[in-house]
Amino acid sequence: MPDTEITFENIRAAAERIRPIAKRTPVMTSHSIDVRSGVTAFFKCENFQKGGAFKIRGASNFILSIPKEKLSKGVVAHSSGNHAQAVAIAAEFVGAPATLVMPEDAPRAKLEGTRARGAKIVYYDRFAGNREEISARIAEETGATMVPPYDHPWTIAGQGTAAKELLEEVPDLDALVVCVGGGGLMAGSSIAARHLRPSIRLFGIEPELANDTYLSFAAGERVKIDTPPTIADGLRSTSPGALTFPILKRNVEEMLLVSEDEIRETVKFLMMRMKIVVEPSGAVSAAAVLFKKLPPGIRRVGVILSGGNVDYENLAGL
Amino acid sequence: MPDTEITFENIRAAAERIRPIAKRTPVMTSHSIDVRSGVTAFFKCENFQKGGAFKIRGASNFILSIPKEKLSKGVVAHSSGNHAQAVAIAAEFVGAPATLVMPEDAPRAKLEGTRARGAKIVYYDRFAGNREEISARIAEETGATMVPPYDHPWTIAGQGTAAKELLEEVPDLDALVVCVGGGGLMAGSSIAARHLRPSIRLFGIEPELANDTYLSFAAGERVKIDTPPTIADGLRSTSPGALTFPILKRNVEEMLLVSEDEIRETVKFLMMRMKIVVEPSGAVSAAAVLFKKLPPGIRRVGVILSGGNVDYENLAGL
Repeated sequence: MPDTEITFENIRAAAERIRPIAKRTPVMTSHSIDVRSGVTAFFKCENFQKGGAFKIRGASNFILSIPKEKLSKGVVAHSSGNHAQAVAIAAEFVGAPATLVMPEDAPRAKLEGTRARGAKIVYYDRFAGNREEISARIAEETGATMVPPYDHPWTIAGQGTAAKELLEEVPDLDALVVCVGGGGLMAGSSIAARHLRPSIRLFGIEPELANDTYLSFAAGERVKIDTPPTIADGLRSTSPGALTFPILKRNVEEMLLVSEDEIRETVKFLMMRMKIVVEPSGAVSAAAVLFKKLPPGIRRVGVILSGGNVDYENLAGL
Repeated sequence: MPDTEITFENIRAAAERIRPIAKRTPVMTSHSIDVRSGVTAFFKCENFQKGGAFKIRGASNFILSIPKEKLSKGVVAHSSGNHAQAVAIAAEFVGAPATLVMPEDAPRAKLEGTRARGAKIVYYDRFAGNREEISARIAEETGATMVPPYDHPWTIAGQGTAAKELLEEVPDLDALVVCVGGGGLMAGSSIAARHLRPSIRLFGIEPELANDTYLSFAAGERVKIDTPPTIADGLRSTSPGALTFPILKRNVEEMLLVSEDEIRETVKFLMMRMKIVVEPSGAVSAAAVLFKKLPPGIRRVGVILSGGNVDYENLAGL
């Protein structure tokens, strides 16, 4: 399916479909951040989302789109954590069995959140990188449907509902800043934002250590990197998606990078000044604002804080 | 001025007066907390308030009520931190000089927040307990007006605006749970809540280590204790106020206690599950809900989270 088939109408339909599962999250502002960054920032707080991250939007839109007879055979997904929790929640909601393929070193909060929903967890070694094979085998053996974490139109349309809500609440944004892992949130958000505010400038943010999309932008084609060791565990994808990359190339003005120290500082700043808990992956977009990575001429910036699932020990260790 | 002179009309007037300074804070809910506590809880998030705590409500209502010619001589206050920050913010807003008498061991976040507002800080030794004398001397020497942290009708009326907002947003509460230090928040909130919902049941919560109001309820009169060593640094008052105590006696059904461990666990729970940062004093009310201290028969509970100013090192140390 070519990416041109994902339209704002799909995102609008997704918003209706996921309403019983996903929350409409608040938009917050912070005087201290505005003073420090020199822009006016509007934070879409997906850390307050059900399951603690935006992932429930795509996962529930996907699962609610599976035909009933197929759904009864269950769903399977691989994920470093937030997508797993989201699939577990959406599967529990529709009463379908769920199997999640997760790395052994995933944050405990994400493992526990997934297990608490009654899902089955299968572990894999992150650095062996065979998670796709494991999930594909489970799907084949059980008839379960694979729920892709980012590279599918249903997932992308679901993720786009975050930006839709933000733009509906704050229509006059100059720019929107979104973290990029596999690119599902950025792809969906860019389609929604471009429709609701054609003049908006779109920026994707990655950790310097997980710069696969940044390098792909420079090369003009999808580049694959080694599994990146960033603390932003939700952004450890090794290349942008086949479906997400062309959407990003078309809509995103520039990919920007933030350092590990900038991510850590931002997590602390959001805790101490805004009084909210955001995981390192979720703080990457805010780090770009706080550390002034955006080009000049931008005054009002939407920032999607993608999630808040972090272990207490890891927070304390910052 | 007898306490009977503080009416809901004073609180309504305070709400109008402080509108340019204080925020209307959000009310949040948490599925995990409801499941664990067996009640439906509505959290009034004063940790998101300007200055990071409810104190701006009382301080700004007080300072905006001082006659202009007196105000130009400045204001002075003593506080372990949140009241100091609030006075500094309100004084900056009206352009009056502010002097704050603070303990040397106040949380750094609170000291820095106060200093950042251009206020002058005078330190005192918490265990020498002479802060009232120091502020009184400064007031006498400079002509500055003392801004009482809790025991004044203007302060109490200001604090009452928190419960007013909560009840306006969630009118059908069975109970309201508020932490008690000097008793200003509880006194003002009890007047507002009683007016808006006459049937509401009101509970004051203290740390076991800072049980001065609990003991005063038992004795039927104000009891003084030694400076309490609780981690809830905002609740280290040694006795309830002369003005607040009779209001509490009239309106509050019962004083309940929570342990230091319960406070610590609640701070962590609010961070990990609700993704919000609440200081130990602010978590005391939530601890009473989470650890099921309320009598049976209560289903919908309002909980005021009084503030969120905590040092990162202290959070990490929990």
